[in-house]
Amino acid sequence: MKRIAVDAMGGDYAPKAIVEGVNQALADFSDIEIILYGDETKIRQHLTATERVRVVHTDEKINSDDEPAKAIRKKKQASMVLAAKAVKEGEADAILSAGNTGALLAAGLFVVGRIKGIDRPGLLSTLPTRDGHGFDMLDLGANAESTAKHLHQYAILGAFYAKNVRGIEYPRVGLLNNGTEESKGDPLRKETYQLLATDSSINFIGNIEARELLNSVADVIVADGFTGNAVLKTIEGTALSIMGQLKTAINAGGLRAKLGALLLKPSLKHLKKTLDYSDAGGAVLFGLKAPVVKAHGSSDAKSIVSTIRQIRTMLDTDVVGQSVQEFSKEEE
Amino acid sequence: MKRIAVDAMGGDYAPKAIVEGVNQALADFSDIEIILYGDETKIRQHLTATERVRVVHTDEKINSDDEPAKAIRKKKQASMVLAAKAVKEGEADAILSAGNTGALLAAGLFVVGRIKGIDRPGLLSTLPTRDGHGFDMLDLGANAESTAKHLHQYAILGAFYAKNVRGIEYPRVGLLNNGTEESKGDPLRKETYQLLATDSSINFIGNIEARELLNSVADVIVADGFTGNAVLKTIEGTALSIMGQLKTAINAGGLRAKLGALLLKPSLKHLKKTLDYSDAGGAVLFGLKAPVVKAHGSSDAKSIVSTIRQIRTMLDTDVVGQSVQEFSKEEE
Repeated sequence: MKRIAVDAMGGDYAPKAIVEGVNQALADFSDIEIILYGDETKIRQHLTATERVRVVHTDEKINSDDEPAKAIRKKKQASMVLAAKAVKEGEADAILSAGNTGALLAAGLFVVGRIKGIDRPGLLSTLPTRDGHGFDMLDLGANAESTAKHLHQYAILGAFYAKNVRGIEYPRVGLLNNGTEESKGDPLRKETYQLLATDSSINFIGNIEARELLNSVADVIVADGFTGNAVLKTIEGTALSIMGQLKTAINAGGLRAKLGALLLKPSLKHLKKTLDYSDAGGAVLFGLKAPVVKAHGSSDAKSIVSTIRQIRTMLDTDVVGQSVQEFSKEEE
Repeated sequence: MKRIAVDAMGGDYAPKAIVEGVNQALADFSDIEIILYGDETKIRQHLTATERVRVVHTDEKINSDDEPAKAIRKKKQASMVLAAKAVKEGEADAILSAGNTGALLAAGLFVVGRIKGIDRPGLLSTLPTRDGHGFDMLDLGANAESTAKHLHQYAILGAFYAKNVRGIEYPRVGLLNNGTEESKGDPLRKETYQLLATDSSINFIGNIEARELLNSVADVIVADGFTGNAVLKTIEGTALSIMGQLKTAINAGGLRAKLGALLLKPSLKHLKKTLDYSDAGGAVLFGLKAPVVKAHGSSDAKSIVSTIRQIRTMLDTDVVGQSVQEFSKEEE
């Protein structure tokens, strides 16, 4: 049985969307057990599942505008902190939260703890590509600064994730850079390039430019947390902006455009689905002793189910355990 | 009379698109004079303008895959190099090229030369936003590494450009960062924030996240060249990917979708126009003693006209001369 600690109070639609997602996930997967942390009365209003689920009541929760490290230190009874402690103390195998990202990173680092040999866990997400194949990118912003050694560790972690969780046998690992040639980039990129090119344990395919990211040119993209964060937010912002402009253009186009849009509705729905991040699961703080997964703040029940499915796969394939083994080898 | 040196041999559709753009620009603007550098026979095939234009013949040109600095050093008679020399020797006031970006940067730095007091010229473009207002962003990749002092200079240069060329009286200057709070970012961002916040000559509005870039939240966005380059290419790649997916979705939707698309055609055209970078002019290598402007490699005649219009405004408002004055003050 895989035991998942769920912060029921984090996210824009908590606890409703979280609990409804848990109901569905328990129905879908017979090998999981859920512990819900949060306001018991509010949770029970939505909880229909009766088996393999229990509620741990707490009045305290971390808000989206709380200062992360301080919140973790001061709010010792917050639902997110209790979920992290459950993992630390062996009562649960993984954590899911749709709450304050910074606080979850802090809880992951300070409560769950790093894998020995990994300096800085990185934030990893599977992002959708045009052909539906997707790619894993890290670090998406867990760290504002990185060294070549950190980026090398992200490459190994990313390849482990793509192989175990997404079933890609020889994941193609690319380095996000400002040009494709080996000589491109700043000293950090040049040094990282050499580390990746000489590591025979990964399938390094060279530098990748941001323009190509959505064309399925690599299975894993390695970036420093500052650039990775900027690129992720640019993809989101540009996609939202274009879909918004499309809507404005249709509205401004009068009856003719509205009729056209009506006829196109199924196609546009299909496009929206391709762009939909909610199917891809959450962002994993990878490099910790257990899966710590952040669902999007605006998660609905469906996103929560996807994220639980993702955590289940991570536990099934023991991707964390394998990473522990890999990095203990490197330490020798 | 404003004299513009044009590299007729750079770009995917050179010399045809370049020369056709020059024909149009000469008809539109009576106060410009053009010197075309390149293969005279090929240029004359497309040149219909007869006044305020002359051709300087050369057989040599820089290719898109030439190593930039080396090409500038070895190909002394290349059309791009001759155009840069014309500016250096006072025969022309500005350069336009749609050729090899790196080579044009090198020609700008080594032939035209930096403004005294500016350490590293930055690449600036006006990018379109959802409401059509647009924003100026720099550095888009002229430098792989930046210090806080460089970013501070970009803020001043960007504000000068937005004010003079785009007519924005008090340009709002934002710093691209991984969060909006003052405390966010790596040491480079934190140090830059303090420099910008204490410089009363600019209207600094704080940190801007990449997600907000296309929402007209600032008139000038300051970034280091590595991140700026990644963000620019991500915007381009995401926009292309979504438009491609829209096309695929329509094609897969059968007759109904095709009819819908037909009815929506005017609206989609309008959307494409909003996303169209060709209207916004070229990328300026800003911080040099004269306007050095890179038109997109895939420029058509229309983009060349826009870029010539942009150069004409830069010369009209003497934005470079004003920058020279500003930075000589700072040196005192």
